[in-house]
Amino acid sequence: MPAEPYAMPLRVRYVECDMQGRVFNAHYLTWVDMAHTEALAAVVGDYEALVAGGTDVVVAAANLQFRRPAVYGDQLTVLVSFKPPGTTSLQSSFTIAREDTVLAECLMTHVCVDTATYHKQPWPDWIRDRLNSASGWR
Amino acid sequence: MPAEPYAMPLRVRYVECDMQGRVFNAHYLTWVDMAHTEALAAVVGDYEALVAGGTDVVVAAANLQFRRPAVYGDQLTVLVSFKPPGTTSLQSSFTIAREDTVLAECLMTHVCVDTATYHKQPWPDWIRDRLNSASGWR
Amino acid sequence: MPAEPYAMPLRVRYVECDMQGRVFNAHYLTWVDMAHTEALAAVVGDYEALVAGGTDVVVAAANLQFRRPAVYGDQLTVLVSFKPPGTTSLQSSFTIAREDTVLAECLMTHVCVDTATYHKQPWPDWIRDRLNSASGWR
Amino acid sequence: MPAEPYAMPLRVRYVECDMQGRVFNAHYLTWVDMAHTEALAAVVGDYEALVAGGTDVVVAAANLQFRRPAVYGDQLTVLVSFKPPGTTSLQSSFTIAREDTVLAECLMTHVCVDTATYHKQPWPDWIRDRLNSASGWR
Repeated sequence: MPAEPYAMPLRVRYVECDMQGRVFNAHYLTWVDMAHTEALAAVVGDYEALVAGGTDVVVAAANLQFRRPAVYGDQLTVLVSFKPPGTTSLQSSFTIAREDTVLAECLMTHVCVDTATYHKQPWPDWIRDRLNSASGWR
Repeated sequence: MPAEPYAMPLRVRYVECDMQGRVFNAHYLTWVDMAHTEALAAVVGDYEALVAGGTDVVVAAANLQFRRPAVYGDQLTVLVSFKPPGTTSLQSSFTIAREDTVLAECLMTHVCVDTATYHKQPWPDWIRDRLNSASGWR
Repeated sequence: MPAEPYAMPLRVRYVECDMQGRVFNAHYLTWVDMAHTEALAAVVGDYEALVAGGTDVVVAAANLQFRRPAVYGDQLTVLVSFKPPGTTSLQSSFTIAREDTVLAECLMTHVCVDTATYHKQPWPDWIRDRLNSASGWR
Repeated sequence: MPAEPYAMPLRVRYVECDMQGRVFNAHYLTWVDMAHTEALAAVVGDYEALVAGGTDVVVAAANLQFRRPAVYGDQLTVLVSFKPPGTTSLQSSFTIAREDTVLAECLMTHVCVDTATYHKQPWPDWIRDRLNSASGWR
């Protein structure tokens, strides 16, 4: 049975809204990054500990669909689901919603890298195992 | 013969670099937005005039590939190419490069909207004509 | 008896940290702005309603003291205190703290403006009254 | 005779403008930081080389006065003047202008720190000498 998606609450900041009165597109990617880091921490532990252990993650690709605008003061939820990890990669899907209204969706591809060289490396076994257990692709 | 891509020079800001010593991923989308606005202005005139005339554009989708990191102080170029416009949409491709090294690529889909309602509307004929002349999909 | 300061909780975002591994200085001003807006809303109602009623506020001055660095993941509190308002102005003080450790302090001066012209105007009486009641300069 | 102030050109980005149609206040501090880094580099060499040599600078205080709004597309100049350095500190003044119109002013205090501990340390002699030669407090 697939795991429940991780949910990160978020309130839209004034500084994130542009002259159109809506959130500027790049900030969705910041939110996705925040939610990914939180969801990953929930599965494999704090980011700082991960890095201290020699493992880091970098973004390889992002695919965003913008459905409806987020506006100032919106209380949003970012839902995160992990796909079963590849040898060195991890795909994840994100839904940014205001209550039942989907505002944006995103697919991300991250790659596991060595902290010293930033060259890609296989996920450590214990991380891959936990990511597998936590995966629940929607 | 396809038009030459529009080129926007860019210097990486300190504030754009994160603890990994590289540009945080969301800022690439800001750069792409800046380059799109400049390239569009070069074809159909200043953004403010466009909006004053009742036409605005919103982002519908973004597809980013991250190849290599940009770092503090990098002098970059963002190349923009427009595809022939659809009835209400416009696709554009972006290459972010440091000299001959491609750091990231992006495909964007924008939609023409009415400035009063933000509902999508067909491109005004004169804008579509100019976008067609300027298009040069690579 | 002076009112208790308004307290806004805040968690440091990864994107807010720079290559020194600490929060970039400009983001403190964003946090101060967020806390000011929240504290003002607690006293005179939502910002959107204020603006809809013809009253807006702009920043006239900011005076920041940086004591100790905030780092990624820090759980912070921004405390806000209002001074009794002037005819058209409002001074407020901010303390950004991690538990009992003060990281930064800020004094801000805002000015009441007309939403149509952005010219300064006296605070509407009901707003001045509430700001007076809520003031508690430390 | 005091040195000429260092001038950094700047074009206002769309993402820097908020729902009031003006640049959000925190971004002025980002611009000031950019101009300080450039001006410092013009006097003592690139920031990266400074850090590689064991010297870094952190912001201790910022005092901003906002005179008039900057708006989207504005072509601005940030002027920087250094005061003669203290033992461990450096004060600098900034004027942000659109042609002859001053939009904002800022006084900054930076402190010289050791790159390993971030504890304050005296400026290396060669840096203090160059800062003295370059100082021209207005």
